[in-house]
Amino acid sequence: MIQAGVIGATGYAGNELVRLLMQHPEVELKTVTSQRYIGKHFCDVYENYREINSLVCEEEDIEKMAEQCDVVFLALPHGVAAKKITKEILKKTVIIDFGADFRLQNADDYEKWYGLKHEGKELLKEAVYGLCELNREKIKNARLIANPGCYTTCSILSLTPLLAEGLAEKNSIIIDAKSGVSGAGRGLVTGSLYCEANESIKAYKVASHRHTPEIEEQLSYVSKQKITLSFTPHLTPMNRGILATCYATVKEGVTEKKVRDAYEKWFGKEYFVRITKEGVFPETRWVKGSNFLDIGFMVDERTNRIIVIGAIDNLVKGAAGQAVQNMNIIFGLEESTGLCHPPIFPG
Amino acid sequence: MIQAGVIGATGYAGNELVRLLMQHPEVELKTVTSQRYIGKHFCDVYENYREINSLVCEEEDIEKMAEQCDVVFLALPHGVAAKKITKEILKKTVIIDFGADFRLQNADDYEKWYGLKHEGKELLKEAVYGLCELNREKIKNARLIANPGCYTTCSILSLTPLLAEGLAEKNSIIIDAKSGVSGAGRGLVTGSLYCEANESIKAYKVASHRHTPEIEEQLSYVSKQKITLSFTPHLTPMNRGILATCYATVKEGVTEKKVRDAYEKWFGKEYFVRITKEGVFPETRWVKGSNFLDIGFMVDERTNRIIVIGAIDNLVKGAAGQAVQNMNIIFGLEESTGLCHPPIFPG
Amino acid sequence: MIQAGVIGATGYAGNELVRLLMQHPEVELKTVTSQRYIGKHFCDVYENYREINSLVCEEEDIEKMAEQCDVVFLALPHGVAAKKITKEILKKTVIIDFGADFRLQNADDYEKWYGLKHEGKELLKEAVYGLCELNREKIKNARLIANPGCYTTCSILSLTPLLAEGLAEKNSIIIDAKSGVSGAGRGLVTGSLYCEANESIKAYKVASHRHTPEIEEQLSYVSKQKITLSFTPHLTPMNRGILATCYATVKEGVTEKKVRDAYEKWFGKEYFVRITKEGVFPETRWVKGSNFLDIGFMVDERTNRIIVIGAIDNLVKGAAGQAVQNMNIIFGLEESTGLCHPPIFPG
Amino acid sequence: MIQAGVIGATGYAGNELVRLLMQHPEVELKTVTSQRYIGKHFCDVYENYREINSLVCEEEDIEKMAEQCDVVFLALPHGVAAKKITKEILKKTVIIDFGADFRLQNADDYEKWYGLKHEGKELLKEAVYGLCELNREKIKNARLIANPGCYTTCSILSLTPLLAEGLAEKNSIIIDAKSGVSGAGRGLVTGSLYCEANESIKAYKVASHRHTPEIEEQLSYVSKQKITLSFTPHLTPMNRGILATCYATVKEGVTEKKVRDAYEKWFGKEYFVRITKEGVFPETRWVKGSNFLDIGFMVDERTNRIIVIGAIDNLVKGAAGQAVQNMNIIFGLEESTGLCHPPIFPG
Repeated sequence: MIQAGVIGATGYAGNELVRLLMQHPEVELKTVTSQRYIGKHFCDVYENYREINSLVCEEEDIEKMAEQCDVVFLALPHGVAAKKITKEILKKTVIIDFGADFRLQNADDYEKWYGLKHEGKELLKEAVYGLCELNREKIKNARLIANPGCYTTCSILSLTPLLAEGLAEKNSIIIDAKSGVSGAGRGLVTGSLYCEANESIKAYKVASHRHTPEIEEQLSYVSKQKITLSFTPHLTPMNRGILATCYATVKEGVTEKKVRDAYEKWFGKEYFVRITKEGVFPETRWVKGSNFLDIGFMVDERTNRIIVIGAIDNLVKGAAGQAVQNMNIIFGLEESTGLCHPPIFPG
Repeated sequence: MIQAGVIGATGYAGNELVRLLMQHPEVELKTVTSQRYIGKHFCDVYENYREINSLVCEEEDIEKMAEQCDVVFLALPHGVAAKKITKEILKKTVIIDFGADFRLQNADDYEKWYGLKHEGKELLKEAVYGLCELNREKIKNARLIANPGCYTTCSILSLTPLLAEGLAEKNSIIIDAKSGVSGAGRGLVTGSLYCEANESIKAYKVASHRHTPEIEEQLSYVSKQKITLSFTPHLTPMNRGILATCYATVKEGVTEKKVRDAYEKWFGKEYFVRITKEGVFPETRWVKGSNFLDIGFMVDERTNRIIVIGAIDNLVKGAAGQAVQNMNIIFGLEESTGLCHPPIFPG
Repeated sequence: MIQAGVIGATGYAGNELVRLLMQHPEVELKTVTSQRYIGKHFCDVYENYREINSLVCEEEDIEKMAEQCDVVFLALPHGVAAKKITKEILKKTVIIDFGADFRLQNADDYEKWYGLKHEGKELLKEAVYGLCELNREKIKNARLIANPGCYTTCSILSLTPLLAEGLAEKNSIIIDAKSGVSGAGRGLVTGSLYCEANESIKAYKVASHRHTPEIEEQLSYVSKQKITLSFTPHLTPMNRGILATCYATVKEGVTEKKVRDAYEKWFGKEYFVRITKEGVFPETRWVKGSNFLDIGFMVDERTNRIIVIGAIDNLVKGAAGQAVQNMNIIFGLEESTGLCHPPIFPG
Repeated sequence: MIQAGVIGATGYAGNELVRLLMQHPEVELKTVTSQRYIGKHFCDVYENYREINSLVCEEEDIEKMAEQCDVVFLALPHGVAAKKITKEILKKTVIIDFGADFRLQNADDYEKWYGLKHEGKELLKEAVYGLCELNREKIKNARLIANPGCYTTCSILSLTPLLAEGLAEKNSIIIDAKSGVSGAGRGLVTGSLYCEANESIKAYKVASHRHTPEIEEQLSYVSKQKITLSFTPHLTPMNRGILATCYATVKEGVTEKKVRDAYEKWFGKEYFVRITKEGVFPETRWVKGSNFLDIGFMVDERTNRIIVIGAIDNLVKGAAGQAVQNMNIIFGLEESTGLCHPPIFPG
C-alpha cells in the first residue's frame, strides 16, 4: 500500500483528494493537515465522512510526513510550497503540488504574474508539469509534480491536437472559460457567498488571470512556437465544472475530418479523454464527479474558425483526480486505478 | 457474477441504478430497457456514460430477461409492475421493484390512495418490503422485493427507534419532508422546468401524498399499534436529497439520553445509518451520492416534543442504492458491496 | 416629501430598503450609513445602483440624522439599537428598527433568548410591534417601531385567524419554516458560502431559534392565552423567500369552511395578504420581490389537523417592505404606497 | 391611457411584459391571449398575479384587438407573425413583434437561417428594427416594430461604438454569450428540466444560432461594411440574464482612452446603457429585473485585443422592457416611463 499524506486537506481540492484516496485500492491515507482546524476530526469539518474517516487534522510537519509517507500532496496557496520543499524532502518522498509554484518553467513569468519572488528556483528543473496525457513519460520518474491548474488542464488538452498538428493560426486563440464556484475555494470572501454568486454570471480577472502564462507555456511546447492568447475566466452559478470554449482561426484547407483525425491521433486511446461525436458538444454535467475531459469541436466555414469545447470537473481532472493519476503513473499502477467512477448525474 | 437487467433504465432512478451497478464488483449489467429510447445507446441518453457503457436500450421483454438474468430491477410507473410480474417469472429470477405496487400489504389502502385496482394481489404475500435495516431476514429469501419509496425510507427509519421503543405518543407524529427535484422524475411537466422549480420552495399533495399509507403501515408494524400521521412533502430547489423533519410528543420521562440509547440499539451497528452527535443535525449535502441515512434529534423540554431529522440521497438510499443493498442481501454478499462510495461534497 | 435615513444600509435588508425607498413617490432618501464601507459610493457596494443612486455611505450619527430626517430606519445587529435610541431622538424623528431589541415586550424573554442585558427597557412601553395587519391603529401614533422578523411575520399572520377565532388546540402548534439564504445576511461565515448552501437543505437552531418567543408572544396576544409552540427554521438553497408550514390540531367541529371564514374575516380586505383558493398552496416564487403574504390551508380529517402554509419574500414583507408599510401608516399615506410592484417571475 | 393587448401572454416574455405593463402609468392592459390557457384566469397561470390581475386568457383575434387596442404586442414562435400581420391591421394599431419575422431586412437570410419561406416580405420595408438606442428616430413613426432578440440586443449595443468608430478589425469579432434558462422559454423539453439545466453549463447551436445573422446585419449597418462574426450561446444555470463576452482585434493605436471616448459618445447620455468604470465588468445580477444594459471593456496590449462585456436581463432589455421602451417612443412618452425600477438584488 502506498502511504499518503495531504497538506492543506480542508480546502475543497484537498477534501476532494481525501475522497478519492479513501476509495483508492492501493493507498493508505495516513495524515491530513490543516491550518484552521488543527486537532479537529476531519469528519467534523466535512461531515460527509461521518463514521467512515477517523483522521484528525494535524499541524503541518512536512519533514515528518516525508519520513512516513511515500507521497505527500500539497494543496496550499501559491508561494508557500516553494519555501517548504527541499531536495532533502524529495529524496524521501514524492511531492505532488496543487499550487502554482512549480508549474511555470519560466521563473520570470512566475514573478511577473504572481508578483512574488520565486523561492524555489533551484527545484524548477526537477519539477515535472503533471499533465498526464502529455507528460506521462517524464512523470514516471518524477519526484516533484506540479499538478496543473483547473482552467489550464481543460484548455491545454482541448487545444493540443489542434496546435501540435499545425491546424490553427498561432495568434488567433481565444479561450472563454466558465468555472463553478468551488474553483474559488473555501475562503471567506463576499463574492463567494451564496447570494452573490447565485443567479449571476460574470467574467473576472479579464486579461490578467494567472493561468494564462501556464496555458501559453504549455501550448508553446506542444506547438513548438511561442503562443500568446486571450483567456477570460467566468464565475458560473454551479458547484463544480469547467467549460472552456476555445476559438482559433484554422489554416487553409483544414476540414472537420482533418481535425477529428488529429484529436483521434492524440487522444483516441486516452481513457480519460472522450471526444464527442460530430454535432455533440461537452456539458459539465456529463463529467461531474469524474476524471474525464470531454472534448467537442466544429469547424465553421463562414468564419474560418474552429470552436473547440472542453469540459472537466474542476476538482477532479482539474485538481485531485489528476493528482491521483500522477501518483498512479509514478508508482507504476494502472493509470485509472481508483479513478473509474462514472460521472454522477444529476449531480 | 450476478447477471442483472434494468427495466425502465432511462428515468432518473433507473439511471442511478445503472451507475451503481457499473461500479459493483459482482454484477454484470446485461440489459437495460426503455420505452422512449428503444434502439438508442444508453450513453446517448445519458452522456455521462460516453465511452464507458456500450449498452443499447432494448424494448422490454420481462420473460426473456427472467431467463437471462439473476435479478431484474423494475423502475416503472405504479400499476405496471403488478400486471407484468407473475409466479412464473419469480421462479426464474429475483425481482426488485422500484414502484409502489407491492409496498402496501393492505391492498385496500393501495386502491384507495392510488385510485387503481390492484392487479397482482396474489403476489402480495410473497412480496417483501425491502427496507433493509428492518427486514433483512425476510429479504434474504425473497423473490420479489418492493423497494421502498424515497420519502418513506427516510421517514420510517428516522422514526423507528422512537416508536418501536414506545417513547412517543402514537398520534402525535408529523413529518415535514423536503425533496430535491429529481424525485419528480424526468417527465415533461411544467412544474419540473428549471425556471419553475428554481429559487422557490412549495408544499405539494398536502395531506394526500401516496407515501403516507406506506409510512403508516410500516410504522404500525414496528410500534405494534395503528399509527396515523401527517406527512407533507415539499419540492426544494436542488437536484438530490431528502430531509425529513419529524415531530412527536414524547412520553413522560423520556430524555435525550433514553432516545439516544434507543437509536444506538437499533442502528448503532448499521453501516448505512449514521447518528449525529448531540447538537448536530443532518444536512442533505453530507449524504449526496451515497447510500447513507443520517439521523439527528433533539428533545425539546419546552414543548415536550422530540424533533428527529433524517437525510438521504433520494436516488441512492431512497431508490437505487437500497435496491442494490437488497440485491446484496439476497445474493449473500456483504451488504455494502458496491455501495461504499463516500458522499461527494460539494456535490 | 418624507426625509429618510437608513443606518446599516449595506446589509441585505438595508439594501432592499434602499431599493424600495428609491421607488417610493413620497420619500427622499437623504442618508445611508455603513460600518464597513464609509466613504464609498453606495453604487460601488451594490452595483445595481450604478448611475441611479449617488449616495455615499456615511459614518453613523443618529443624532444628526434625527435632526435631518423624518424617519430613520435601523438595520443593525441586535443589542445595538437598544443602546443608540433615546427619548430625545424619538422626539425628533420616527425610528423603525429592523432588529430584535424592541420586539419582545417581555424583557426577560429577550435576555434569556438573546443572552444579553436589555439596555433600553425604558423604551419598551413606547415601542410598537410593527406587524401592520394586526397593529395598524397603534402604529399610526408610534415613534418607535419594532419591525418584526422575517420568520415571525410569516408565522404569526399565517396562524392569527386560526388562533384568534379559537379553532385550534393551543398547545398543538408546530411551525416548520424554510428560508432563503439572504436571511442569513451578508456576513462572512462558511455556511453562507455558495458551495456550502447550494444543493442542500438543513434545519438549524432546532428548538432554539430566537424568533420563537416573538411568535409565541404575539400569538398569545391574538389568542388571549399563553401559546407555546415548536419552531424549526431551515436553510433552503434559494436567494429569497420564506415558506412556513404550520400544523395544529383543530377543535371538534372545525371545518374547512369555518377556517376559510375566519381567514376571510381577518384578511379578506387586506391588500398584502392573499388567501389561496381551496387546493392551492403558496409557493415562494409567487411572492418574490413583493410585499405580499400568501396563505393557504387544508383541514385533514384523517389526522384532525390543519396545515396552514404561508409564503413571503423575507427581504420585503419580512423586512424592508413591512418597514415601508409601517412608515406609510405613520405618515398617513395609503398603506401600499411604493409597495405595489407585482412579484417578479421567474425571479 | 394607451390601450394595449398581448398575444402570446403566457410565455415567459409575454408574462414579463404583463408585469411591466401593469406598472406602467400610461397603459391600460385590455387583453391577453394564449393558445394553451384559453378561458383561464391569467393569475391562475402565473400566480404571482393573484388578486392583482383579473384578466382572462382569450383566444387570439388580432383583427378585433387591432380595433380595440392602440398597441398590440406579439410574443409568438417565428413564422406565425408574418402570416398574421397585414397592412390593414397596421392601419388600425401599432404592432410590436417579439418574434424574428421582421428583424432581418434580408429575407434570404431569414429563409436560410430559419428554414422557412418568409410570408410577409411586403411588410419588411415598413418594419423598424426596434433597438431603441440606435433607431430611435425611425421608431417614432413606425407602425410595425421588430423587437430585437435577447442575445442580439446585448451583443449589438455592446459592440456598436467599437465598430461604428472604426476601432476594431472587422473580421475579428467573436461573441461568447451566456444566457439564463428563461431564454429557452416555457416549452416542455427535456433540456429545460430543472435537473438537466441545473449545475451545468453548455454551449448549444454552435456556429448555427439564428441570432447570428441579426447581429451581423445590424453591426454591418453601424460599421458601414459587411461584418461576419462568430457567435456561441451558452445555457447557464440561472433564471435570467445574458452576459456577452465579445472579443475583437483593435486597430493600431487604439487605446483604452479612445475606446472609452467612443462609448461615451454613443451611450454617455443613454439612460438604459451604463458604462462601468475602468477595471469593473458587468455581472448579470446587477441588471436583474431592469431594463439596463451594463457595458465594460478592457484593451489587452499583450494580444492586441479588446474584450467588451455586456450584461442585460434577457426578459427585460432583451424582450419585454425593450418592447415597452419602443412603445414609449412611438407614443411620445418619456422613454423610461414605467421602466425605472432599479435592478433587484439579490434576485
